[in-house]
Amino acid sequence: MDPRPDPDMSNCSIARTLEVVGGKWTILILCEVWYGSSRFSDFERVLGCSRNLLAARLRMLVKEGILATETSRKPGSRSRPKYEITPKGVDLVPAVMGLLRWGDRCRADPEGPAGLSRHRGWGVHVDAQIRCARGRAVQAEDIESVPVPAFRMGLAE
Amino acid sequence: MDPRPDPDMSNCSIARTLEVVGGKWTILILCEVWYGSSRFSDFERVLGCSRNLLAARLRMLVKEGILATETSRKPGSRSRPKYEITPKGVDLVPAVMGLLRWGDRCRADPEGPAGLSRHRGWGVHVDAQIRCARGRAVQAEDIESVPVPAFRMGLAE
Repeated sequence: MDPRPDPDMSNCSIARTLEVVGGKWTILILCEVWYGSSRFSDFERVLGCSRNLLAARLRMLVKEGILATETSRKPGSRSRPKYEITPKGVDLVPAVMGLLRWGDRCRADPEGPAGLSRHRGWGVHVDAQIRCARGRAVQAEDIESVPVPAFRMGLAE
Repeated sequence: MDPRPDPDMSNCSIARTLEVVGGKWTILILCEVWYGSSRFSDFERVLGCSRNLLAARLRMLVKEGILATETSRKPGSRSRPKYEITPKGVDLVPAVMGLLRWGDRCRADPEGPAGLSRHRGWGVHVDAQIRCARGRAVQAEDIESVPVPAFRMGLAE
């Protein structure tokens, strides 16, 4: 895949993440599971990608532990696996919400986005925000990336 | 690109976002700009992708208004554009931080991630979190997606 792999990128968490979820269809499948689809035929109908591509992406997501399958076998019927999101898949939700937020702000239809995410109980809009470990909101320009040893030294000061 | 575009997906903000930033290299380029790289030769050295692919992705990011170029022309020297992130690019930071967070938790090297994101002034770790409009932390399982008219009706109640 990578024509000239570079050692500098070998421990980049984003590069590692994108090896798994870097494709458009992978994230769209995840969203559909998140929104309640669970069958191959559901994904095929809503996403409109080819069956081969869909099957390959679902296999990869199961292999990576992001989706899990449960097969219901009724006597005499064909088995149809049901796809469910795992805790490792749930951990991707902030990233997916971040993509959604950008799309809503920067790429929405002139009439606005078709849907919004809200808290099931509180009814208010929810989105991905950058926060510090203490929960305070952080401006993007105040973020810096530091090597882990430097970060640990900073905490020890 | 899409073999069978489906009208259901035409106003999905994630699908629209992934049309722009759906590729692995696009997000990796954005991270590099975010971390301070600004020249074609910097991206080429760190990312190790082909020059053609890199040039195409940079052109697309500029065309989409996510990066902007500033060309310094010294007399007698070749012009070398310098790439900078725009406000529209900054708006992608929560999504990128979300991918980073997942990579750190689920795909990091056994020795742990190479780097961490922290607040420049406070020194504490920062990451992407799901929050409601009032800033309260939200569990992934409490999020629901609703069509915009239903959302507005919920607010009016």
